Amino acid sequence: MIAKFLKEHNADFIILHGSSNDANFYYATKFKTYDPLTYIIGIDGSDILLVPEMEKRRAERESRVKEVVSLNDLRYMEKLKEMKDAKKAYLDILVSVLKEGRCRKLLLPEELPTYISFELMKHFQVEVVKNPFMKLRIIKSSSEIEKIRDTSNAILRCVKWAVENFNFKTCEELRSAVELKLFSDGYLAENTIASSGKTSSDPHEIGRGRMEDHVVLDVFPKSVDHLYYSDFTRTIFLRKNPELEEMYKAVVDAQEKAVGMIKDGIDARDVHQLVKDVFDSYGFKTEKGEGFIHSTGHGIGLEVHEEPRISELSVELKKGMVVTVEPGLYYSEIGGVRVEDTVVVRKKDCEILTPFEKFIRLY
Amino acid sequence: MIAKFLKEHNADFIILHGSSNDANFYYATKFKTYDPLTYIIGIDGSDILLVPEMEKRRAERESRVKEVVSLNDLRYMEKLKEMKDAKKAYLDILVSVLKEGRCRKLLLPEELPTYISFELMKHFQVEVVKNPFMKLRIIKSSSEIEKIRDTSNAILRCVKWAVENFNFKTCEELRSAVELKLFSDGYLAENTIASSGKTSSDPHEIGRGRMEDHVVLDVFPKSVDHLYYSDFTRTIFLRKNPELEEMYKAVVDAQEKAVGMIKDGIDARDVHQLVKDVFDSYGFKTEKGEGFIHSTGHGIGLEVHEEPRISELSVELKKGMVVTVEPGLYYSEIGGVRVEDTVVVRKKDCEILTPFEKFIRLY
Repeated sequence: MIAKFLKEHNADFIILHGSSNDANFYYATKFKTYDPLTYIIGIDGSDILLVPEMEKRRAERESRVKEVVSLNDLRYMEKLKEMKDAKKAYLDILVSVLKEGRCRKLLLPEELPTYISFELMKHFQVEVVKNPFMKLRIIKSSSEIEKIRDTSNAILRCVKWAVENFNFKTCEELRSAVELKLFSDGYLAENTIASSGKTSSDPHEIGRGRMEDHVVLDVFPKSVDHLYYSDFTRTIFLRKNPELEEMYKAVVDAQEKAVGMIKDGIDARDVHQLVKDVFDSYGFKTEKGEGFIHSTGHGIGLEVHEEPRISELSVELKKGMVVTVEPGLYYSEIGGVRVEDTVVVRKKDCEILTPFEKFIRLY
Repeated sequence: MIAKFLKEHNADFIILHGSSNDANFYYATKFKTYDPLTYIIGIDGSDILLVPEMEKRRAERESRVKEVVSLNDLRYMEKLKEMKDAKKAYLDILVSVLKEGRCRKLLLPEELPTYISFELMKHFQVEVVKNPFMKLRIIKSSSEIEKIRDTSNAILRCVKWAVENFNFKTCEELRSAVELKLFSDGYLAENTIASSGKTSSDPHEIGRGRMEDHVVLDVFPKSVDHLYYSDFTRTIFLRKNPELEEMYKAVVDAQEKAVGMIKDGIDARDVHQLVKDVFDSYGFKTEKGEGFIHSTGHGIGLEVHEEPRISELSVELKKGMVVTVEPGLYYSEIGGVRVEDTVVVRKKDCEILTPFEKFIRLY
């Protein structure tokens, strides 16, 4: 797959540099590392992961890479002593490895750090490309879908528990309880949104203080084990508030119509347009940074936000993509509401991975 | 400070691009964001953070940036519709913003993504520089030291609890218990090392299965609130093992001598050499990827591993730096042992932020 990509670009190698926080790097190597490492793939199908000496055996055991080479094997320490600059010594090694592989033309993924690109372009013909692993990641394998399902199920268990035991008074209490419950189950949720009152009109405000009439609970954990995310939002009503409930009714209607439309071959832009049309039909306006102020959804997998986006842009949704569908309405004088599910695109419809009651009234 | 840096480089602007996972970006903006944003600083002291419309109000409220501009204000949606490529539309906006600021020469931090650098170099004179915020981050302010102390105290509470309630049978049980305890306290520890037996001879092996005679517990959480890390390791003995205990005795001796040496003005290389000399004096050899196979320590703050390193390289340690001191010995036929504290460099000595018993024998 990557060899084919290299061939199309008439290139000999592509070079990745990242830690396992970089989804493309982790997808390509399946190696968990904090410190960024370099991974080089050749057109002949060869690949090399460069690691510090202390990581060599673990990389051989855990990564999916064919050849693991330690920096010591490449005389890094000698170069470091000679050059007295860790980055220079490291770049010198990269250049030697590529020269040894008779590299002529090299592909640089868009996100590659500039200091690497600027050095390599002195020695090789280079072309900046969209990371080919990003494209591979868009369509999920069945094993990836099972991982996202696993994280989705953890969300459902947690939210069911939170709703059944809802004695939280503040946004912070709700957020802590949800995050702790997920963590004890093996899932890491950070910056979980539990926002209430007028400040919930900022979609990314995580929320603080006493909960008022409603709370927007948006939780997007990843598995600590397999690292796949899922994403889920419900607006929970704690006290009667006809204005917010009217907004939420429109949001749920828009979301269900959008979910109903998603299947292989549909244009994501049409899904986004449908949501806007539903809001229009209810008379909810979007203007001056108020109303429906974000896109309808995004791909999810090893990143919370990845391709494809469900927005103004035309993108064909395909079988095996996993996306969120999450319309919302936000008015600064009233507050915000949102509903969100993670779904898998199938041949003739989509499967909701996060099925859960939409209207949760606790009053 | 940054204006001075720009002046030294005869440049008009520097451009940062990152999420709050990027320590330099967070340090510079104090804005928590998943999705990477662009931050531009001018030689006149002006600065601009570019954000999606939906983040504008939050950025104005939470960031330390003077001017927050939404992409919509810059006609991003129109450009997107016209260009049909999110990255191209975004780069077009960056170029306009810089041109409007009459940019002539622009500084590109080493880690800036290549696609941004390659576009900007078409329009402006550029120079790749080490991120100036990285240098600012090396010396911690007293408020930063208090944050690292706060995380250190959380570690101490947690490890005290774990030692007093040690009924764990497997590495996984110990790791889960420690991480859950920290998380419930507001601190996130990932990939905590709890490794035992011969596999502990891999310093970064996180450990699995039944614990044997000893366990290396290495925990490096960050505060979920203020994001500062601390780092701590103890080797805990569960059953008598003279060979491992002999190694650990040398490691503790080396660590205490190294800590005793650290103060303002000392060369980190001499600290590393002292550790090697102590191991030599005990007769513990380092060869063929076995023995003392990593550096003595590293700076810590908004990143687990940051500058300065305590290694072969000469670097002057200065008052206000916060570093780990963590020698270890690793032999594949025996196992590994390590001890680690986080310390603050002071005028005449250093302060240990993680004071805790070194010899923990639970048999």
